[in-house]
Amino acid sequence: MSSHGKVGRVLPAPEGFVPDALAEDIATHGLDATRRDFLRQSFAAASAALATGSAFAAADHPGHDGDPAIVQPAKHSTTLGNPVAHAPYGAPSRFEANLQRRESPGLTKRRESSIAFTPLQGLFGIITPSGLHFERHHAGWHDIDPTSHRLMIHGLVASPKVYTIGELMRLPAVSRMHFIECGANTAMDWGSPAVPSVQYTHGMLSCCEFTGVPLSLLLEDCGIDKTKARFILAEGADGASLTRSIPIERALDDVLVAWGMNGEMLRPENGYPLRLVVPGAQGVCWVKWLRRLEVGDAPYATREESTQYTDLMPDGVSRQYTLIQECKSVITTPSGGQRLLEKGFYNITGLAWSGRGRIKQVDVSLDGGRNWTTARLESPVLPKCLTRFNLDWVWDGKPAILQSRATDETGYVQPKIGELRAVRGTRSVYHNNAIQSWRVEAGGEVINVQIS
Amino acid sequence: MSSHGKVGRVLPAPEGFVPDALAEDIATHGLDATRRDFLRQSFAAASAALATGSAFAAADHPGHDGDPAIVQPAKHSTTLGNPVAHAPYGAPSRFEANLQRRESPGLTKRRESSIAFTPLQGLFGIITPSGLHFERHHAGWHDIDPTSHRLMIHGLVASPKVYTIGELMRLPAVSRMHFIECGANTAMDWGSPAVPSVQYTHGMLSCCEFTGVPLSLLLEDCGIDKTKARFILAEGADGASLTRSIPIERALDDVLVAWGMNGEMLRPENGYPLRLVVPGAQGVCWVKWLRRLEVGDAPYATREESTQYTDLMPDGVSRQYTLIQECKSVITTPSGGQRLLEKGFYNITGLAWSGRGRIKQVDVSLDGGRNWTTARLESPVLPKCLTRFNLDWVWDGKPAILQSRATDETGYVQPKIGELRAVRGTRSVYHNNAIQSWRVEAGGEVINVQIS
Repeated sequence: MSSHGKVGRVLPAPEGFVPDALAEDIATHGLDATRRDFLRQSFAAASAALATGSAFAAADHPGHDGDPAIVQPAKHSTTLGNPVAHAPYGAPSRFEANLQRRESPGLTKRRESSIAFTPLQGLFGIITPSGLHFERHHAGWHDIDPTSHRLMIHGLVASPKVYTIGELMRLPAVSRMHFIECGANTAMDWGSPAVPSVQYTHGMLSCCEFTGVPLSLLLEDCGIDKTKARFILAEGADGASLTRSIPIERALDDVLVAWGMNGEMLRPENGYPLRLVVPGAQGVCWVKWLRRLEVGDAPYATREESTQYTDLMPDGVSRQYTLIQECKSVITTPSGGQRLLEKGFYNITGLAWSGRGRIKQVDVSLDGGRNWTTARLESPVLPKCLTRFNLDWVWDGKPAILQSRATDETGYVQPKIGELRAVRGTRSVYHNNAIQSWRVEAGGEVINVQIS
Repeated sequence: MSSHGKVGRVLPAPEGFVPDALAEDIATHGLDATRRDFLRQSFAAASAALATGSAFAAADHPGHDGDPAIVQPAKHSTTLGNPVAHAPYGAPSRFEANLQRRESPGLTKRRESSIAFTPLQGLFGIITPSGLHFERHHAGWHDIDPTSHRLMIHGLVASPKVYTIGELMRLPAVSRMHFIECGANTAMDWGSPAVPSVQYTHGMLSCCEFTGVPLSLLLEDCGIDKTKARFILAEGADGASLTRSIPIERALDDVLVAWGMNGEMLRPENGYPLRLVVPGAQGVCWVKWLRRLEVGDAPYATREESTQYTDLMPDGVSRQYTLIQECKSVITTPSGGQRLLEKGFYNITGLAWSGRGRIKQVDVSLDGGRNWTTARLESPVLPKCLTRFNLDWVWDGKPAILQSRATDETGYVQPKIGELRAVRGTRSVYHNNAIQSWRVEAGGEVINVQIS
């Protein structure tokens, strides 16, 4: 049983929670001007039947006859609970067991080279809990002993070196919050809507606070030959020996060799004990279980940047080395697979991000893109990091099409799927940053649709 | 086995990692000017013996005879690992099992009314992983069914109401990062240094992204009588029915009724499904398992604000309703119980925070407070939130006394313990925000000491 399914944001409130007349007022006069009155009124009818003097839960007491005067306190209010450090490392409530990362069955031939999606529909704020960080492996994950792991840096450097984890962790560290998105996120929707929920349309997306040493410092330590260096090859220690080329200007900018994620060591499935953090770039560049960095004068044309992770254009040419995740956004609630159980107030909420910097603005449409309202951005708004947006909404019970459209600080505006297809064709897999549309049916069901 | 114990930040690097002469240079010329050269030189000797062409871990191969040419790849580099979603909700590496919250044995009579401390010495950045958030209970914790939990608001309001969790989660939510610190944090050191490590001196401190509805919005929804309202009483649903009075100006400011913590629902031991978030105030005000809010015209003088959580002053009077956690900081590495295994470069790192707003500056002393150097602050620097600071340091192998001193945006400077005692005496328990001193012995041991 999950509160996200049963008592989450899409649950019913009492009848008359928001009067229809008020919803019309807001449609006419705009949300901002009427927001305070609106919220007051929308709650006026919500809780008429106050149980006098008791907030105890009747549901805990099967014998309860409905008279508040004889409600007995819940058991948890009258007994000693669990001691401290009952779990030296804690876990979510048993009522949240349904909130988990999930594989899309049959997506790949083997589960060791598959994807587990982050349940964006159930998350708040911008931080992804480490236990729900999305997974994408090419040969499965291992829990590598950090005392035997090494990072080698060689190639166009004066002094090639091998670092232990202990050596790296003694260096000047920085901590920064960044999103990570697989280049193939939303890939399944290049054609027609293929998957039902935001977990599967956008769940190859997470955001954490990463801690590590700037790669620029390590390259300088090894005496990088800046006159010749053009690319870095990063290699992982997994069975795939996954390798990617990183342009030198990016490698010397904000890239980290990271061991920390959300305050603690990286999780094994996310690269423990060492991964590359390449802010703004697609996830495959963030090489996990990082063991080798080679400085070269040209890109390396590895498997994962030649036969894979290229963009097949309409003219038959494949774009290669497309690193940057362009500006994108998605409404996470209400979203596909959820159901609005009645008319009334809803907090439309979602996430926006850009591989090129900060989010400047997010607009939300309730009618499939004809009219747009600017959403509220939650602070902090950080570069190359998820930004949470919110918008008040009163659902009148009629069909609606919800969309969000992000603009980043470069002025780039997230495109419609039709605009994207006009340039990129229909045979692409990666870098689908189109506006997502969720249709709310009259019955309250929310469905993944496309508005080109 | 923990990387924080065995390969963490206080591990040895190869001999000659930082030449003594260089350390003297830095002492003479200051760190900033020489930092880049210093880092380059400090690594020059670090990795002379490069294993040509291989970063594989020899430790994985007992038969390895030391010739890099015949090193075999590690098993994890040649086999398929675990599949995705192997753990639908992930967990830390098996090598990190030692990083856990810990009780200080015998601190209280029962473990249900005790404390589990956050292992600050092993954390990075500002986010505390939810599994390591400190615990302080008065009657133990329960995993409360959210579908039967209610929040009642009554007292000086026009319309008393009872809210379900579902109703609350439909409201306009905000997400903000804030520290939470128990008023009794560092209590054991009011006298002489009593505990060995930063986990026990400062570990009643955590920092998360919290998501919830502003309390001001709920109070407005209930029609708060602003002409009479002076205090809010907040009550928890645990066996202690823990209650605290919150001044109305604070309640109407940035207080949240929160369900989210670090992107997911609150953990049971941290108040699932609902807790009060009172930014800047001591943890006991952040009432967990929140079930009732009463609006009144005076403070309530509950048990936890009359016989407990008061500050006994030298004149015998007890200060009451002391909510705010004043500006404070602590070096988390190197810190008590750790050991520097050799001379050379270390990244001194720690945390600073203030209940009154943003951290403006952190200064670090290496000689017990005679000389101070301004540390680097990591972004983002947020109000009433932990701020991570870092400072380069070359340990010359001689005894040193490390201190950090924070200044917040109000201009308040963290006091010495002697300054605090001059005002507050020696019989206090709560609100010890004095400068912490760690003595580094010639042998590298780091010890909790007091410099008044």
